[in-house]
Amino acid sequence: MPNTLSRASLRRLPLYMKLLARLVAANQPNVTSAELAQALELDETLVRKDLAVTGFTGKPRVGFATRELLAHLEEFLGVRSRKEAFLIGAGRLGQALCHYHGFEKYGLSIRGIFDNDPKKVGERVGELEIQPVWMAPVLARQAGVRIVLLTVPSHVAQAVADLLVDAGIIAIWNFSGHPLRMPPSVIVHNEDLADSLAVLSHRLAQYDLPDDPAAQAV
Amino acid sequence: MPNTLSRASLRRLPLYMKLLARLVAANQPNVTSAELAQALELDETLVRKDLAVTGFTGKPRVGFATRELLAHLEEFLGVRSRKEAFLIGAGRLGQALCHYHGFEKYGLSIRGIFDNDPKKVGERVGELEIQPVWMAPVLARQAGVRIVLLTVPSHVAQAVADLLVDAGIIAIWNFSGHPLRMPPSVIVHNEDLADSLAVLSHRLAQYDLPDDPAAQAV
Repeated sequence: MPNTLSRASLRRLPLYMKLLARLVAANQPNVTSAELAQALELDETLVRKDLAVTGFTGKPRVGFATRELLAHLEEFLGVRSRKEAFLIGAGRLGQALCHYHGFEKYGLSIRGIFDNDPKKVGERVGELEIQPVWMAPVLARQAGVRIVLLTVPSHVAQAVADLLVDAGIIAIWNFSGHPLRMPPSVIVHNEDLADSLAVLSHRLAQYDLPDDPAAQAV
Repeated sequence: MPNTLSRASLRRLPLYMKLLARLVAANQPNVTSAELAQALELDETLVRKDLAVTGFTGKPRVGFATRELLAHLEEFLGVRSRKEAFLIGAGRLGQALCHYHGFEKYGLSIRGIFDNDPKKVGERVGELEIQPVWMAPVLARQAGVRIVLLTVPSHVAQAVADLLVDAGIIAIWNFSGHPLRMPPSVIVHNEDLADSLAVLSHRLAQYDLPDDPAAQAV
């Protein structure tokens, strides 16, 4: 079984899932790769390749069974497995992430929030109470939590991550902007919101800015 | 000139830029596509294709001139052009984005922050004061602002976006989670943090969870 799915393909799978969920809700039993490609503005070859790598094959002329493909992708992405995580760094971004409900569809729930600022400790963020960061490793071990969202300032990110890995953390969703040096057994997923801006920035650079007709009329 | 660069390629360009910036800082004059591919864990063919589509070509055996390639990618992504934006929706995510400094490297600066909650109006977020959302369209027109970051709740996203487009907004970075229906002339870039979780979730699903040796020792 091929296990080398590119990061770009992985990032596209949620797009297929959202579309498939709409098709299932509309009782459409099958969908072709051409239809998927058109709806998502992707190349058809790419669509076929993305889905083939996950191990799902369509039927000639009929296409993919929508419900089965959706269930397959959910399974493939481990959506249904519960994932308990701690969030380290209760700043603005950390608190925003704690209140974000989109993670639940991937089975991720944030079970603890930690900060090193004594003034923040004890404050509530939704249902959670901010705890001192030095307690995170021991609580992670006690609760069997193996995932953290790291939203600390970049200059402390490495030190905090090292402590957490010593405590058995195996996956770090890194929002700190600091490139972490970690043992190969640790899964690090770096998030940089600004990278997403590259797409928008390029499209704006290509944009032949029209005059604003209303502004002209003034 | 090819102008059909895939979204996936665009998302990779910041990775090349970060690596190139490090190479330039280390005074490395050239880099081959094989070296880029290895450092970024990408396929070499893909690297060559990504860069070719931006219109930059390397020299046989020598590779790419690091400084020139970096400048070229910055130009290609419109990084150096100033982009002034308004942020609509001063909730936790909105405020976190206002304080995020990574956008400046793409030339984006947030010039106004708006909310419909009278209790929030007048509060300061960094150097900005939250203004009532009904003022956003007229202020955008006055200031020539054409870009918004939309961080309002999903159920009001379409209505707010419609008002902004009427006021001359041409690009919407949509964090609301609501799929906006917009005229084709409007650039909409949808952001869903949970989609990024797909990558992490899959890698966790593949992960053969090792026992925690320290936990065993207890």
